[in-house]
Amino acid sequence: MRFLLSLLLALSLSAVRAEVLPSWNDGPAKQAITTFVTDVTNVSGPDFVPPAQRIAVFDNDGTLWVEQPMYTQLAFVLDRVKALAPDHPEWKDQQPFKAALEGDMKALGEAGNEGLMQLLMATHAGMTSDEFEMIAADWVGAARHPRFERPYTELVYQPMLELLDFLRANHFMTFIVSGGGVDFMRPWTQRVYGIPPEQVVGSQIEQRFELRDGKPVLVREPKIAFIDDKGGKPVGIQRHIGRRPILAFGNSDGDLQMLQWTTGGPGRRLGLILHHTDGEREYAYDRKSHFGKLDQALDLAPENGWVIVSMKDAWAQIFPPAR
Amino acid sequence: MRFLLSLLLALSLSAVRAEVLPSWNDGPAKQAITTFVTDVTNVSGPDFVPPAQRIAVFDNDGTLWVEQPMYTQLAFVLDRVKALAPDHPEWKDQQPFKAALEGDMKALGEAGNEGLMQLLMATHAGMTSDEFEMIAADWVGAARHPRFERPYTELVYQPMLELLDFLRANHFMTFIVSGGGVDFMRPWTQRVYGIPPEQVVGSQIEQRFELRDGKPVLVREPKIAFIDDKGGKPVGIQRHIGRRPILAFGNSDGDLQMLQWTTGGPGRRLGLILHHTDGEREYAYDRKSHFGKLDQALDLAPENGWVIVSMKDAWAQIFPPAR
Repeated sequence: MRFLLSLLLALSLSAVRAEVLPSWNDGPAKQAITTFVTDVTNVSGPDFVPPAQRIAVFDNDGTLWVEQPMYTQLAFVLDRVKALAPDHPEWKDQQPFKAALEGDMKALGEAGNEGLMQLLMATHAGMTSDEFEMIAADWVGAARHPRFERPYTELVYQPMLELLDFLRANHFMTFIVSGGGVDFMRPWTQRVYGIPPEQVVGSQIEQRFELRDGKPVLVREPKIAFIDDKGGKPVGIQRHIGRRPILAFGNSDGDLQMLQWTTGGPGRRLGLILHHTDGEREYAYDRKSHFGKLDQALDLAPENGWVIVSMKDAWAQIFPPAR
Repeated sequence: MRFLLSLLLALSLSAVRAEVLPSWNDGPAKQAITTFVTDVTNVSGPDFVPPAQRIAVFDNDGTLWVEQPMYTQLAFVLDRVKALAPDHPEWKDQQPFKAALEGDMKALGEAGNEGLMQLLMATHAGMTSDEFEMIAADWVGAARHPRFERPYTELVYQPMLELLDFLRANHFMTFIVSGGGVDFMRPWTQRVYGIPPEQVVGSQIEQRFELRDGKPVLVREPKIAFIDDKGGKPVGIQRHIGRRPILAFGNSDGDLQMLQWTTGGPGRRLGLILHHTDGEREYAYDRKSHFGKLDQALDLAPENGWVIVSMKDAWAQIFPPAR
């Protein structure tokens, strides 16, 4: 009887153990995560953090989902320009719209930030918040990634889904802190990541309240209200969350200040950087990439104790199985 | 035995009933609240709302705590000007600082919004976010209300504390959506209202991330980033929460658009306005008040179905017992 009990206990323990982060290979990254979570949840240990303060922040593009060959939101912008073009015959001869319509990435690059902003405003403003939510949700449901030929929302990283679940099971709150537009993400983050709209921090455009035929609407205006990138990320965290995270996970120089802000606080902290090293299963890029450039943060990682998660080595699986 | 069981059941039922909103008198306001909560939580009823969508928003000044004889944050501003005056000898002869130092409310009124903004910037900017949090928390802990001679955080409305608890017990998320400064409120909302920092929406000033001697800080800059009042409230809700509330509770024209936005959505909704009608136990004011002016929203309440909560009639008790 005692033997049977021991056997059952051993079996159930190994089952529990096997369930933690199954798509993560054993190695330093997985070890750093599980040790951190064990330590901050150990109520009698020196590193204990009360549940309310267990704030974890995640970049989105390139950290939770694919950002190559271009940011998903940029693919959305280009598709929207095409969809709206019939109402704008002048776009055929007018940059940067001409480049967007022709898929001329070189000319788009030359149009720079200013050109991008024009495209953004033409596609993200001028409608109500409810209308934009529907447009974004429809596109995300229909669009397919050019290489993997799957919906973008299936090109999320399975190991990160497991990490989000693992953290929440340990009473962390999981926030997205992304340079992407907050209203582009919110329609699907609950379904895809288990992250509700109010836990998504991102870039914002101005909105204006008005009554239209007595019905209240929020109108999206062609003006940037906030850019949640680089130094903006700690500001967005402070504005939205109002306390400093204890865990931050990013993948590019856009996440550098978020990592500094998170790990620069007192007590136990964890900073992680996903390094895209897997050109076969996903993409390999860092210092010279147009999207998700990782250069300075990579250099600063060792002295700050940030854990570099090499995709090729750390992850047994990249994407969830096709539905 | 059956008799005993019935008795126990009856007793426990009456105990449960007695526990719901005990400081609310029986009447139309309490009835409207309990009926609404019963209906949206009834999984087999036509008005059911899933827990994740049970968003309730509350104004702060004059809805959750006292806003007379002036907004608490204004009392903070005036005290801070006095505390900082030794470092600013020029303020003695310079408006609006002179008026603030002398408590000259008439001159302060004449200085208008521009003057107020100057005082705000002199007291709310120029320090790090951590420093400001400490300054605000210290003041809130030490300051006393001139009439009631109690800490401001004890001059919160007992019936509203019960309502917040009641809603959360019914799986609502309770948010503050206030014209006040978000960083002035967050240090104490968890302790006082049970509302965590990330569920406080308010006005914001610009902040800038920087490294000081290698240590990351957020520096508060003398520039308004967002005013969470009037038409700004629905915008603040959209920015921060990302979905439309089903219950809104305010007390002034500053809450009008929040009420319109909340109750203008599809499905069952509840809008409530606290009417300060109790000069004896608290204050009596509405259409002509400097702080918390309630005029247009009062006129629009009947046609919108907003419930007017008359403090004098609806509340058996105003403040929690002294500690």
